[in-house]
Amino acid sequence: MQSRLLSAPWTRPAVRAATPRAGRVAVFGGTHGNELSGVALVGMWVKDGAEIQRSGVATTPFIANPRAVERCARYVDTDLNRAFTAENLSALSGDELPYEVRRAQEINRLFGPKGTADAYDVIFDLHNTTSNMGCTLILESSSDHFVLQMVRHVQKACAPAGCSVLLNEHPLLKYSTSRSVAKHPIGLEVGPQPQGVLRSNIFESMRLILKHALDFIELFNCGVEFPACSVDVFRVLERVDYPRDANGNITAMVHPHLQDCDWEPLSSGDPMFQTFDGRTIEYQGPGPVYPAFINEAAYYEKQQAFVTTRRETLSACAVRKLQ
Amino acid sequence: MQSRLLSAPWTRPAVRAATPRAGRVAVFGGTHGNELSGVALVGMWVKDGAEIQRSGVATTPFIANPRAVERCARYVDTDLNRAFTAENLSALSGDELPYEVRRAQEINRLFGPKGTADAYDVIFDLHNTTSNMGCTLILESSSDHFVLQMVRHVQKACAPAGCSVLLNEHPLLKYSTSRSVAKHPIGLEVGPQPQGVLRSNIFESMRLILKHALDFIELFNCGVEFPACSVDVFRVLERVDYPRDANGNITAMVHPHLQDCDWEPLSSGDPMFQTFDGRTIEYQGPGPVYPAFINEAAYYEKQQAFVTTRRETLSACAVRKLQ
Repeated sequence: MQSRLLSAPWTRPAVRAATPRAGRVAVFGGTHGNELSGVALVGMWVKDGAEIQRSGVATTPFIANPRAVERCARYVDTDLNRAFTAENLSALSGDELPYEVRRAQEINRLFGPKGTADAYDVIFDLHNTTSNMGCTLILESSSDHFVLQMVRHVQKACAPAGCSVLLNEHPLLKYSTSRSVAKHPIGLEVGPQPQGVLRSNIFESMRLILKHALDFIELFNCGVEFPACSVDVFRVLERVDYPRDANGNITAMVHPHLQDCDWEPLSSGDPMFQTFDGRTIEYQGPGPVYPAFINEAAYYEKQQAFVTTRRETLSACAVRKLQ
Repeated sequence: MQSRLLSAPWTRPAVRAATPRAGRVAVFGGTHGNELSGVALVGMWVKDGAEIQRSGVATTPFIANPRAVERCARYVDTDLNRAFTAENLSALSGDELPYEVRRAQEINRLFGPKGTADAYDVIFDLHNTTSNMGCTLILESSSDHFVLQMVRHVQKACAPAGCSVLLNEHPLLKYSTSRSVAKHPIGLEVGPQPQGVLRSNIFESMRLILKHALDFIELFNCGVEFPACSVDVFRVLERVDYPRDANGNITAMVHPHLQDCDWEPLSSGDPMFQTFDGRTIEYQGPGPVYPAFINEAAYYEKQQAFVTTRRETLSACAVRKLQ
C-alpha cells in the first residue's frame, strides 16, 4: 500500500468531487451486543426517530445483532463486525451457518448489496471501547472525500472537544465490517466504557457526534459546497499482542505508563508492558507511533494489546452534490 | 436486624476473643470468570505460590469457576457467587444441575463443609467491579472480630491509600457467596476495571491488600495480640434499580453527578438518574446514604443500579490465638 503521508496537502490542486446525494442513511447499534451506547441510542430512535431525521434524508435506526444484545454479549457465534466477507455473503443460507453469518446476509439484503448501486449511501455503526480513546471516527478509505468532508465538519462542530480519526486501510488488518455494506461506511467508537455498562457522558458524546454528521448530510443534500480541506488521521500500522506463554495465556499487562494513553506518541524505549513479576518490556520500533485500542477488552481474544498508528494529513477535495 | 451503630465503641469494655489459629487459607480467583485481576493473580500463584505462603499458614490459590474463566464470562449457567445456599449444597448431584451448582458442591467438599469445624479458616475471594470503588473489603458479619482486626491491620498497612469496608448483613440482600464456605469469609473487590480487562494498577492494588491480610494471619498465628479497636464500615441498606419500561428495559442512566461517586454522600434531592430524554431523577429518601457498586456492569441483570449504605463504626475486641 502506498503511503498517503502528505506533508503539504494544500499544494495539490483542489478538485471538486460531484457526489450523488446521500438519501438513504442507516444508524447501526448493537453490532456488538455489549456496547451499550449504540444499543440504547438506537433502541430509543427505533421508538421515536425524530431526533435523527433530516430534510431530504431517510435515516433508519437498526439493531444489528439483536441476539447478542439480548445476551449482552459481543456476539453469539462469531464477530458480526468481521463477517461481511464476500465468502460469507455468498454462502448458501441454512441453519448450519453461524448466526452472525446469517445475520450478515440479512443485513446485506436490507442495506446492500455491498458494492452495488443499490446499497445504502451511509451507514454509521456505533461502538464502544474500553480504551481511553474518546470520540473516534473510523474510516475505511483515504479517498472517500464525502466522508473526509463529513469528518472535517464534525470536528469543527465539536471543537474545542476533539474527535480523532482512525483510518483502517491496512491490507491485512482491515476487516469486513457491518458498515462496509454501505457506499460510505463510518464507524463511531466512543470510550472508555466497560462492556455491559451505559455511561451518560459516553452516551451524550456519541449522540452529539451523530447529530453533527447528520447535519452535514442534510447540508450536503441541500447543495452546500464544502471546500477542499485537509484532515488529520491516524493510519493503522500494526497489531501488537501481549506477551504470552506456550499455552497462549498472557504473561504481562499494559504498562501503567502506556495504559489510557491512546493517541499519545510511543517511541522506541518507552515502557509498553509490565510482566506479572514486575519487569518492564519496552517498545522497540520505528517511532513515534500513536497507539489506539490500548487494552480493549474484546481484543484479548484477537491477540491484540493495542494497534499502532501513524499520523497523516489527508487532503479532501471540495465536494458538492451531483446536480 | 439490630443496628450496630456505635457512637462511642471505646466506652464498651474490651473483651479478648481467643480464636483458634487460622492454619488453612484459600485465595479464590475467577469466581466470576471475567474479573481478571483475581484470575491472573491466582493463575500466577498456582504456578508459583511462594508470594502467598506464610509461616504457619497453608495458603491454597484456587480458580473457582474455570469454565467461566475459559469463556471470559461471569458464569456459565448461574452466578456461582449466589450458589452456596443450603438447598444447592444438599441437592442430589447430577448432570442436570446447573454447572455452578455442581461446582459449588465441589468447592464445598474441598473447602467446607460450610458451617462445620472442618471448613477452611479463611477464604479470600478476589473480585473486580466496573464501579469506582477503589479497594474494598467485603464482610459478611459485624461480629467476626478476627476479620475486623484483619481489616484494621490492612487499613493501617495501606495508609495513606484507603481501603473501604462494605458490610453485607442485610436480611434480604446478603447472598450465598463462594467464600461463605469458610469460617472467616472475606471478599476483596477492586475497581474500576472493565470486565475482560486486566489493568496493572488494579492488579497491584489487589496483590498488596492480600499481602497485608496474609501478614496479619501470620502475626496472629505467631501469637501476637491485637488490641481492641474500632472499624468504620459501610453497611448495606437498600438496592436501587434503574428506571425501567414495561418490558424491563432501562429508561435512564446513572446521573453524571452520581457516576463514579461511590462512597460519597447522597442526600435527598441529589441527582440520581438521567433519563434518555435528559430529565433528572433525584434521590428521595432519608440520608445521607453512601452509594456503592454504582453502575456495576454485572448488576444490570440483577436490577440494581447501586446499593445504598450507611456509615457505622464497629467495635472489635482484642483478639489473640487460642493457646
